[in-house]
Amino acid sequence: MLLYQEWARYGVFYKFQPIDLIRKYFGEKIGLYFAWLGLYTEFLIPSSVVGIFVFLYGCITIESDIPSKEMCDQRNAFTMCPLCDKFCDYWNLSSACATARASHLFDNPATVFFSIFMALWATMFLEQWKRLQMRLSYFWDLTGLEEEEYNTSIILKLTNLYISLQIMLTFSAVFGVIVYRITTAAALSFSTNETTRSNIRVTVTATAVIINLIVILILDEIYGAVAKWLTEIEVPKTEKAFEERLILKAFLLKFVNSYAPIFYVAFFKGRFVGRPGHYVYVFDGYRMEECAPGGCLMELCIQLSIIMLGKQLIQNNLFEIGIPKLKKLFRKLKDGRTEPKEMNTNQSKDPQQWDLDYSLEPFTGLTPEYMEMIIQFGFVTLFVASFPLAPLFALLNNIIEVRLDAKKFVTELRRPDTVRAKDIGIWYNILSGIGKLSVIINAFVIAVTSDFIPRLMYQYAYSQNGTMHGFVNHTLSYFNVSHLKAGTQPENSPFAQDILFCRFKDYREPPWSPNQYEFSKQYWAVLSARLAFVILFQNLVMFLSVLVDWMIPDIPKDISEQIKKEKSVLVDFFLKEEHEKLKLIESFITRDKHKHKSGTKDQRSRAASFCQFNQSQKGSVASFSSQHTEV
Amino acid sequence: MLLYQEWARYGVFYKFQPIDLIRKYFGEKIGLYFAWLGLYTEFLIPSSVVGIFVFLYGCITIESDIPSKEMCDQRNAFTMCPLCDKFCDYWNLSSACATARASHLFDNPATVFFSIFMALWATMFLEQWKRLQMRLSYFWDLTGLEEEEYNTSIILKLTNLYISLQIMLTFSAVFGVIVYRITTAAALSFSTNETTRSNIRVTVTATAVIINLIVILILDEIYGAVAKWLTEIEVPKTEKAFEERLILKAFLLKFVNSYAPIFYVAFFKGRFVGRPGHYVYVFDGYRMEECAPGGCLMELCIQLSIIMLGKQLIQNNLFEIGIPKLKKLFRKLKDGRTEPKEMNTNQSKDPQQWDLDYSLEPFTGLTPEYMEMIIQFGFVTLFVASFPLAPLFALLNNIIEVRLDAKKFVTELRRPDTVRAKDIGIWYNILSGIGKLSVIINAFVIAVTSDFIPRLMYQYAYSQNGTMHGFVNHTLSYFNVSHLKAGTQPENSPFAQDILFCRFKDYREPPWSPNQYEFSKQYWAVLSARLAFVILFQNLVMFLSVLVDWMIPDIPKDISEQIKKEKSVLVDFFLKEEHEKLKLIESFITRDKHKHKSGTKDQRSRAASFCQFNQSQKGSVASFSSQHTEV
Repeated sequence: MLLYQEWARYGVFYKFQPIDLIRKYFGEKIGLYFAWLGLYTEFLIPSSVVGIFVFLYGCITIESDIPSKEMCDQRNAFTMCPLCDKFCDYWNLSSACATARASHLFDNPATVFFSIFMALWATMFLEQWKRLQMRLSYFWDLTGLEEEEYNTSIILKLTNLYISLQIMLTFSAVFGVIVYRITTAAALSFSTNETTRSNIRVTVTATAVIINLIVILILDEIYGAVAKWLTEIEVPKTEKAFEERLILKAFLLKFVNSYAPIFYVAFFKGRFVGRPGHYVYVFDGYRMEECAPGGCLMELCIQLSIIMLGKQLIQNNLFEIGIPKLKKLFRKLKDGRTEPKEMNTNQSKDPQQWDLDYSLEPFTGLTPEYMEMIIQFGFVTLFVASFPLAPLFALLNNIIEVRLDAKKFVTELRRPDTVRAKDIGIWYNILSGIGKLSVIINAFVIAVTSDFIPRLMYQYAYSQNGTMHGFVNHTLSYFNVSHLKAGTQPENSPFAQDILFCRFKDYREPPWSPNQYEFSKQYWAVLSARLAFVILFQNLVMFLSVLVDWMIPDIPKDISEQIKKEKSVLVDFFLKEEHEKLKLIESFITRDKHKHKSGTKDQRSRAASFCQFNQSQKGSVASFSSQHTEV
Repeated sequence: MLLYQEWARYGVFYKFQPIDLIRKYFGEKIGLYFAWLGLYTEFLIPSSVVGIFVFLYGCITIESDIPSKEMCDQRNAFTMCPLCDKFCDYWNLSSACATARASHLFDNPATVFFSIFMALWATMFLEQWKRLQMRLSYFWDLTGLEEEEYNTSIILKLTNLYISLQIMLTFSAVFGVIVYRITTAAALSFSTNETTRSNIRVTVTATAVIINLIVILILDEIYGAVAKWLTEIEVPKTEKAFEERLILKAFLLKFVNSYAPIFYVAFFKGRFVGRPGHYVYVFDGYRMEECAPGGCLMELCIQLSIIMLGKQLIQNNLFEIGIPKLKKLFRKLKDGRTEPKEMNTNQSKDPQQWDLDYSLEPFTGLTPEYMEMIIQFGFVTLFVASFPLAPLFALLNNIIEVRLDAKKFVTELRRPDTVRAKDIGIWYNILSGIGKLSVIINAFVIAVTSDFIPRLMYQYAYSQNGTMHGFVNHTLSYFNVSHLKAGTQPENSPFAQDILFCRFKDYREPPWSPNQYEFSKQYWAVLSARLAFVILFQNLVMFLSVLVDWMIPDIPKDISEQIKKEKSVLVDFFLKEEHEKLKLIESFITRDKHKHKSGTKDQRSRAASFCQFNQSQKGSVASFSSQHTEV
């Protein structure tokens, strides 16, 4: 089969997809999906390249980055306050050297540039998709298409209920993981084993992220099952508006499911810990969790990469290849057991095509495919400021994904009923919404989560000599250890006697100030700078996006010209034909009038052939005229 | 004439405009303009009402406003630092009582609500206009319309040059007025006359605003003349794209011309004055100007109302009524002098209609009319936070304006060539751009220009008892008068000996602090709150706008249904007609085949009448099919 040869093999990953062939075999709706997927994958190439450069920039400048150097310098003995009550000891900041260096890979000035780039990239992608869609709908004659409408209000209410329940479930799962982290960290800190204690953070983070991932995967599967059931109970055609509302809600659900832990790490974790001597306690004596000493950005980055990669690897590749194969195997076994007699009757013949087709999985709609890609689009755009390699991973996944989906459609699913569709519907709105959201989220990630603004502020406002030397010292506040509440002091500290002050990461007044431990002036100044950056970034990117949107016309010029030309050709043709027909009729009438007995053979055959021609053209003209409406 | 009766008289101001009549007489382009103007005026009604309520809220709460009460209280003797070097004395804050009370009329919490309301109002207006435009273009059969294209690149370059020059001129005019204010204020302060000195501020502000207004009016006229000349040199039809670029540039020019002084007062004035003892000097010893003690918002409000009202009164009413009448008079006189002979020849006859029409002014395009309204739209939306009565003034102006324009078109201008247009073109984009800009500008006016945020901050963070008592004291910093630079102390102060500290409006460290006169922690905390408000306000309003945009469908439901119905009727009709024609032709052929000698009289007449019918329908079907493209 041609489609298999040209499209559904991994060997052809470098080739463009044969979209027209796909459309002919599967119909417009699936054709549009693969066209969209292809464009998206193409667009991922430049962003991957830029992302790699940003990452490389981080790698190259890591040696010249003064703050991480200062942190790693053993001579700078910053004695940090204990990370938990009673069982944790004071610790030296240089022990967090590795994470600080790793942080720099993702948290450098190039990241700011990259997030602006990605915001414009998203706008550009949507514009180009509009153009491609216009082009396809022109060449595939989809412009006049309209959908029928049904009414399904009861099912809608049912869905609403279900979706609200699911969102609650998702939030409680995220909350549960946070509780797990806090309690486990506390429990492990009781341990007397030295190695366990030192690995607490790694253990807790890793297990928590993995639990998050598993929760996401399980909830996704539950969602998938219910969505399928919902689609089945109103067989087989759904009202378009209803389907769109269903998709929107399902998307919200998936969105919360996939991003809630990431949002938590990016914007909430470590912001409500209080301060030494006045920590915030939850659940009867557990301290709120702090970020790793390298900053929350590193943790965000780990969280993002594990969830994104894990989701892609497990869900797409394992589930999408593995499960259908297993099901096929299972079905074969079952068929083999229950129908052994029938098998005997046509044993000699080769199995018929329909028998083979029956052993394939039924087609259950494109929603899961789109959903998966849109969630990935979210990973690529929403938090790109903290993980510039996301586009690369997405690209690698998609190169496999396109052929995987293709293979699935060609070889593992029953051929679906061809469905006509003139656009990708609500998915476009969701994409555009994600694009808009990504601007403000990236602005906040750069301003609030990363250390970009404090560094700039230090260099240009507080530094003595305009360099970054002394930055680490500047970000650490002093705490008088005698102010620690009774019972929270480190129990088994070997050097507790020698320590008068410990340091913690915050801008607060020192113990010797009249307003001790209040937020310092620097805190408010840095906060102002952060917020000013958000305003500046958001408005700049929005302005540039409007500019890009405005400069790229929605309808490609060649298409709009062709439409114009065809319209005039159509009108000409139409008038000419009418004219000819009239002439023919008139000639008959004239002949009748002059009482000529019969037409010449020539005339008669001309009339007959014209009728035939007319018959065949009629349909095409009608479709033509309806095709050009709603351009 | 019906149009004059029904439309162009002031007596019918409460009626809807007869848009269809206007379109029939003047063509679609002018019809669309009046439809747009009508919708805009209608939309101004609710916003005026809400604006009046906001103003009334200010009037009612003025007595209970603690900060202005505190300012007016004679017992609170806040000795303020002199407003100019050497010649100005220390002054008591209670002397600024009146402006503080007036400020409250415009600077109260209801204003925040009102600016959110107006941002949504602008979105709603644009959405409704899209719908009305769709409806009109459906009923007026404009959907298939397309414009021809020309190429006029040389003129474009010329225009660019000219526009840049004009913008430079405008900026230099604004700059000139600022210089005038600074120098005059300084010069007047030398005056020995006591009354002159006390009225300095009033004098300077009033004259400066009037100069601004005159400059705006003059530049507007210059622009108008050159724009006319530019339109004339490429007679008579301009390429649509070129015209749009011209309009866009002209709009930018007008925008800068009208709003530059307002932007200056709103965001720059009083922000770069420095502080007592360390003032910022420009032009060899002149101090930068400060805002009035009541705050810059009051000054912004005065500026806005004078420019808006003055512009409307002088430009619209005086120029639009006065100048054409004068011109007509002048033309009559000239005609009367140069062509007295001709007059004699047909003296006896009544003057012909074309003679009368010749005495009318030629029509010079709709651009000035749109421009005027769009600049007004800017006044209504951009700075509505500082002047809630703007919609009311706009409404009053427009009620007159609609009829004035109508009268002008009907009685004072030659009837223009009817021009077809399917939409209002670039004006829509400009309106939508203003709507977007208004969100961020209003956010900044509320956050930065008004005292809204400092008041909130004081009430919830600094106040001892949660009330506003002590707010005025909190916003004033201390200055040790002995730190005044030599030569800048007040010369003739009667109580200079008794004064140790004077106060000034800023958040700075007191003289007894180690970092004296640096920005205090409060300054940065308030700045953070201001910026956070901008982010919150902007994103909230944008989100609500998207929601409004999404909830109101672009095509009214009845129209989209009618289009659908008509399309199916069209296709049915088309097929039926073709079918009939074919039958006719076939019947002729069959008859020929069977060698029947002639058709019955009945048949013949049927065929003839069908041909006639066909002939008349042909045109309509063609226009029909082209009409429904590009819906």
